[in-house]
Amino acid sequence: MIQKNKPLILVVNDDGIDSNGIKVLSDTMRDIGEVFVVAPESDRSGVSHAMTLDADIYINNVNEEKNEFVCSGTPVDCVKLAVNKILPKLPDLCVSGVNHGSNHSINVLYSGTVHGAIEGTIQGIPSISFSHLSYSDDTDLNPFKEVIKNLSIQVINNKPPKGMTLNVNFPDVPFHQIKGLKICKQGNGYWKEDFKFKKHNAKTSYYSITGEFKTGEITPGTDSWALANNFISIVPITIDFTAYDRLNVLKYLAYDF
Amino acid sequence: MIQKNKPLILVVNDDGIDSNGIKVLSDTMRDIGEVFVVAPESDRSGVSHAMTLDADIYINNVNEEKNEFVCSGTPVDCVKLAVNKILPKLPDLCVSGVNHGSNHSINVLYSGTVHGAIEGTIQGIPSISFSHLSYSDDTDLNPFKEVIKNLSIQVINNKPPKGMTLNVNFPDVPFHQIKGLKICKQGNGYWKEDFKFKKHNAKTSYYSITGEFKTGEITPGTDSWALANNFISIVPITIDFTAYDRLNVLKYLAYDF
Repeated sequence: MIQKNKPLILVVNDDGIDSNGIKVLSDTMRDIGEVFVVAPESDRSGVSHAMTLDADIYINNVNEEKNEFVCSGTPVDCVKLAVNKILPKLPDLCVSGVNHGSNHSINVLYSGTVHGAIEGTIQGIPSISFSHLSYSDDTDLNPFKEVIKNLSIQVINNKPPKGMTLNVNFPDVPFHQIKGLKICKQGNGYWKEDFKFKKHNAKTSYYSITGEFKTGEITPGTDSWALANNFISIVPITIDFTAYDRLNVLKYLAYDF
Repeated sequence: MIQKNKPLILVVNDDGIDSNGIKVLSDTMRDIGEVFVVAPESDRSGVSHAMTLDADIYINNVNEEKNEFVCSGTPVDCVKLAVNKILPKLPDLCVSGVNHGSNHSINVLYSGTVHGAIEGTIQGIPSISFSHLSYSDDTDLNPFKEVIKNLSIQVINNKPPKGMTLNVNFPDVPFHQIKGLKICKQGNGYWKEDFKFKKHNAKTSYYSITGEFKTGEITPGTDSWALANNFISIVPITIDFTAYDRLNVLKYLAYDF
């Protein structure tokens, strides 16, 4: 099934195998390589880098011709299972998305889509996460295919250094208003949570989480700034979380017994 | 219930309310402040920064005298609910753990304990994650109480800059062999996964994930090095994932339409 010389590409997401975003992404990837899709059976938004340790995980080959697999686990489970049990070799590229909803700024922490790509990076695969700021599954993502294709080819050809993932976000404006692509740093921002009270019984209260993303102050050079100015943002993100600027400052906490 | 002038401290973990680690940590915190414990009802290891978006979450005040609450969600849910629905004000400190098992190196990505503390940081609370390299719930953590207390007092007194969490790991050796505390950068490492085949039926295969943590090459200055040399490791970690050293290198990917 695998054609020689064609790049091998793993496609994953967190919105689930039936989302519009993963269909557009896998269609685009089939123009440039041999594609395997391994995606959650249903929506896994907000699962971050979670793994399934407390249950068995199943994979099901739902389309043998198109190499499409559905998985009962998280995006991270999908990537680990793909690499260990499905793919014939380590792929040349792992792409995650296209997510329906923002994954810029602090959202990199919560997003299952971004962490699918980060797990690709951990496995040693050049990896990109794609997200569109619209939360609607009906958003027309077709105009973005060319940008996605070009970026993917560049990443395959110029292998990025180990430990880096590209986090790409598309602004929610008509495509003709988009001005270009910017390399950015991660913006500030936070979720203002709202806990909807559902019921109370004895000492137990039930809530559902909702919330609204607040960008905070928008600083030039950040993804939040690029997106607010109709640019596509690309943030190189690292799996080394060390706050290097604090290493010396915190020396006062160290001592020998 | 809240005593003035005593610091307000939130205790969370991922091993669940009944773990030995959270009992030792909350006991230690009661020596220095007014303590609220909000912890998952059962083990949430490996859930990273996951939030519960697909179900209601409950909180149950299981010990009114000790301000102990059990939550059906993840460590991140616990912190968000604590801040929004339980605590009388933003606490002076959020501590997570003591985790039974390593959270150094790449484990910061997977750990629910570390991400409980990171969510504290996002909420604007000075936050520390504590883990012990032994996975056994029976490990005697009492000898570490003094170190935990001193570090917590220092963090309360010298508020760390916003956006930084301390990731503390204790080596798995008898306490008298421990040589001191080191400020470190995050080490390399990876999980070598093993997928145990459980059953197969039609096109569906079932697996359970197990794995072994590999430190890779151990570089001086990293947490892996400190722990291998019987030091307690403290890594300052950031919620800004930007790979700053790649921003200029990747400029070739940017263009205007």
